[in-house]
Order: sequence, then structure tokens, then C-alpha cells
Amino acid sequence: MRVAIVGAGSVGRAVLAQAPRRGHKVVAVADSRGAAVDPTGLDAAQVLAEKEASGQVGAAEADALFDAPYDVLVEATPTTLGSAEPAFEHIQRALGADRDVVLANKGPVAERYADLRALVDRSAGRVRFEATVAGAIPVMATIAAYGPTEVTGVRGVLNGTANFILSRMAAESLAYDHVLAEAQELGVAEADPSFDVEGTDAALKCVILANVLSDDDQVYQLADAAITGIDAIPTSAHQAARDAGMTIRLIGEVGRDGVRVGPRLLATDDPLAVTGTENIVRLEIADAGPMHLAGRGAGGPETAAAVLADIDRLDT
Amino acid sequence: MRVAIVGAGSVGRAVLAQAPRRGHKVVAVADSRGAAVDPTGLDAAQVLAEKEASGQVGAAEADALFDAPYDVLVEATPTTLGSAEPAFEHIQRALGADRDVVLANKGPVAERYADLRALVDRSAGRVRFEATVAGAIPVMATIAAYGPTEVTGVRGVLNGTANFILSRMAAESLAYDHVLAEAQELGVAEADPSFDVEGTDAALKCVILANVLSDDDQVYQLADAAITGIDAIPTSAHQAARDAGMTIRLIGEVGRDGVRVGPRLLATDDPLAVTGTENIVRLEIADAGPMHLAGRGAGGPETAAAVLADIDRLDT
Repeated sequence: MRVAIVGAGSVGRAVLAQAPRRGHKVVAVADSRGAAVDPTGLDAAQVLAEKEASGQVGAAEADALFDAPYDVLVEATPTTLGSAEPAFEHIQRALGADRDVVLANKGPVAERYADLRALVDRSAGRVRFEATVAGAIPVMATIAAYGPTEVTGVRGVLNGTANFILSRMAAESLAYDHVLAEAQELGVAEADPSFDVEGTDAALKCVILANVLSDDDQVYQLADAAITGIDAIPTSAHQAARDAGMTIRLIGEVGRDGVRVGPRLLATDDPLAVTGTENIVRLEIADAGPMHLAGRGAGGPETAAAVLADIDRLDT
Repeated sequence: MRVAIVGAGSVGRAVLAQAPRRGHKVVAVADSRGAAVDPTGLDAAQVLAEKEASGQVGAAEADALFDAPYDVLVEATPTTLGSAEPAFEHIQRALGADRDVVLANKGPVAERYADLRALVDRSAGRVRFEATVAGAIPVMATIAAYGPTEVTGVRGVLNGTANFILSRMAAESLAYDHVLAEAQELGVAEADPSFDVEGTDAALKCVILANVLSDDDQVYQLADAAITGIDAIPTSAHQAARDAGMTIRLIGEVGRDGVRVGPRLLATDDPLAVTGTENIVRLEIADAGPMHLAGRGAGGPETAAAVLADIDRLDT
């Protein structure tokens, strides 16, 4: 397929780099400052070198991307809440031109799912978003395979930063501030970690799952999720948990009764009690039984691999 | 899709029962003694009651199934080695009539993959076999999503009976014969357990994976696998492993150098060290990283759910 990528952060750049090996051609890349367009296929190394040197992917106006002869738009700009702009407008333009869309950006699926469905209904284009939930872990593909109405519940560790902090605190009896600083030094936590440690990121993923699993017209948004973060858990809570053979993890849950994210006590041998930045999702599926899918839930190359899996599926 | 099912064991019967809810119509079911055919769609409850009462699914000759107006043949007769008959002939007839085929039977994919590919090449029909490896766990779908050439290795627990026995021996310091008898009482092991405890079943699944991952013309068969079973592991070996913080599991491995199945020492906190009849598969995927997929690797309803996922994918 001919791919246009909006957003040249770690995910957009990794899609650019991986696409040729997976048999797809990138004809346009845009960041907020400009665009590179070549209908015969961009040279990934050249675009990345240009971005490195000049801070923008190319000299064309960012808007030129939408005039390129693309089959699928990859939306990989940073996730925004509420209006989910500018991602939503990008999707609108692509679907308006009957092109397919693959999202790495969580905003539009979490915050504007009803609007997104309305756009899809009026377009010959399709929307896929495997990469928005747990990176490369095939959560969306597995739900699609068994049918959303067959999935009766989802529970999981959906934020690697929070899980790194909690599992380090539990294993080493270290204080939150100490482990957070360590995570920031390692690049596992952002300078402003609130999006991860307050549970927002995990909640967005759960809201996306809730939207996919909803078997009626009910649509979920971040405001519908009950969220508790991990930033107020004292070291003593971890010690008490350990004394009881338990451990604390930030668990996201999607059930027929909605979306909840918060610290939960798990038995230490619970499959959900993963360590480090690992993500894991437990799907309860009628007939198929409970299933655990675990792996890298974030990272540019991992998320890009999920984007390319979506592109492949659209291509068959 | 209009479905014809050959084989009325636990998997075939569960496909019959689940198909209507998943939006598919079963127009024929055959066991070795007869067939039930109804182009307007069979009543699952009625066919199952007939099988219960008379020992055969219907009064028609088994061969009548192939004259039914089906779109996809589900091959769910018992796995046989070598010629993989009569499954192979069933597939040949369906593909010869340009129908699709979904396999629950491991024989044709493990023992006659080259012949199977030759049939597919001459047919407008397609072959899918998610159900042959680890039941409902989406191993084939995930390999297809990321591309077989991107998967650099597979390792896993692929036989629930062997894993039940090993994990019980390890946890309770019980002898092999004792645990085997217990497994037989629980229905977890067959009266003749050799297919499971000698590693044959796990090896067949690994051979299927090796065939799918093979990026050249090399085709694998059971004879190409290096197999060691679990029936000669003394209780003392489990004790020694535990003293070292390890545990023993029957691990199947597929790499560029072929297929191996045998007891392996794992750290007790290794994700592969699952307990009971659980199955788990670790996929090493370029860019996406290592991924663990775990769940119920056997059972009629679970395997049937994988068959129906394949049918859904053929239907889109």
C-alpha cells in the first residue's frame, strides 16, 4: 500500500523505517513544520537525516501530504484529549477522500468514538487502531478474531511506566519519589510523569477497549472512567502487600459496567503481576476461555510494528 | 459462510454448536458412520441428540457431505501421522471443488505440508489452521499479523497433559506414575498417554510452526523433530530443580535450526513456567520484541472457537 504518515515522532519515524521491509511504500511524511512527498516512495534514511539536520522532515508545507497519492494515512501525532485535534481533522480529511486510516494516536478512538464512527459510515475508507492499546500486543486482532460480543471482560497492565515504578517499589522497598527519579533517568518516565502515574494513559486504552466491546450505542470517553493513580501509594503499602503474599499493580478493567483504573492487590503468582515495563492483557472470551497476551506495550518500533500489521490487514 | 464439518468428536460437535451464534450455517456434518445434510442449515441440538441416541450424526452416507452446498470444510477428524489419512483426502476433495478448508486436524499440516501447498496452488480455495496449534491461543493469527519472516523464534508449552503432570510433580514431590493416574482420573490424560507424554503432540505443533515460519522451500515433518518425552523424569530431578530455584517443563522450540521438544529447566519465575493444563507460546518478533500468548491450548469449545475465528477471517 502507499502510506502517508502524519507525525514524525518515534512511532512515525519507525513506521517510515519499517514500511519497505513489510512491502509498503511511504509516499509522504509530515510533522508540524513541513512535509516530504514523493509519489515514487521516500527514502527513509534520507528523510530521517533531513529531520535530524533541519528539525523538519521536508521543505514542503505540511498540508501537501494530503495531496499525495496515498492509500492509507497513519496518524502518529501525539495523543490529545477532548477534541483530539489535530488528529481528528487529519482523519476527517483522509476518510473524506475515501482513504483508509491507521491510528497510533489514542485521542480520536478514546475521546471521539461516536464522531469517528459517523465519519467511517460516510466513507469508503476504513479505520484500524491496533497500535493504540498495548503497542505490539495483538489485543484488537484477538478481539476481532473471536468477535467483540464474545469478549466478556478485559483486565490488564496497560502502562509500562506505572508498572516499572510499582514493581521496583515492591521488589526493593524503595520510596515512590526515588523510583520515579530512577525511571526518569532511564527514560522510562517522562519529565512530567502525570499522564502515566495518574492513570490517564491506561484509562485511555481501557476506554478504547470499552468502545470496541460495546454491543449497543453506548460510547465511552475518558470522563466515564473511574481512575486512581499510583502516586499516593506509600512504601508501607507495598510491604504490607508482600507480607500477605500479594503485590500491587495498576490494573485497568473493562466490563459490562464500565471502565476502572486503579492500584489493585494481586497474588504474587497472578499472571497479571508482570515486572518492569511489560504490559499484559487478560481477555475473557466465551468458549475460548481466559487468555493472557503479554509483551512490549510501548516504544517506537513496537508500536510501528502494530501499525504495519494493521496496514497489512487492510491490504488483503 | 455455509460450513461442512467432517468429524463429530468434541471439536466437530462444538463447531456445530457455536457456528449459528457466530453467524455461520452448518449445512452438513459427517462422522465415520454417516452424515446429516440440510442445505437450509442443520439444527445443532437435533444432530447432537441423534448422535447421542444412535451413535451417528445422521442417516445419510458419510460421503453425502461433499455434495452439500458448503463454502468451507472443517476437518476435525482425529489426527493421524504419516499419510494423515483420511483427513488429507477430505481436504483434497474440498480444495478440488475450490472450497475453503479449516483444519483442527494437525496431521496434514505437520506430515504433508508440501502436498498440502501443492493442492492449494491448484485451487481457488484457501487453507487455515489456527486450531492446530495451542487451541484458542492466537498463535497463527499473530504470526500472520507480523509476517512469518519477522518471527525469529518460537518457544512454548504446547501440551497441557504433560504440563499438568510436570507441574504437579514439581509442586507436590509426587512420582510420575502417581500423577499420571491422577491425570487419567481427571480426564486430563488419555488411557494411553503416550501421544502426550512422549512429546509427539507438542512436536506436531512445533513442526506446523516450523512449516509456517520456513522462508524457503524446506518442509518439516515429525521425523525431523528431536523429541524427548517426560515419562523418564524421576521425582528427584524435580527436587534438584526446586533446590536450584528452577522447575522442569516440556518445552517445544522452533528456530532456524529446526524443531526440538524436550524437558527443560526454567527459572520458577520464567513466564513459560505455567501450571496445570495451561499452554503458552513465546514469539520473538523483529521490532515487536518478545511476546507471550497464554491460555487454553486444548478442549472442544476452545478449539472450535479457533476454527470459527478462521472461518470469520475467510469470510471477510
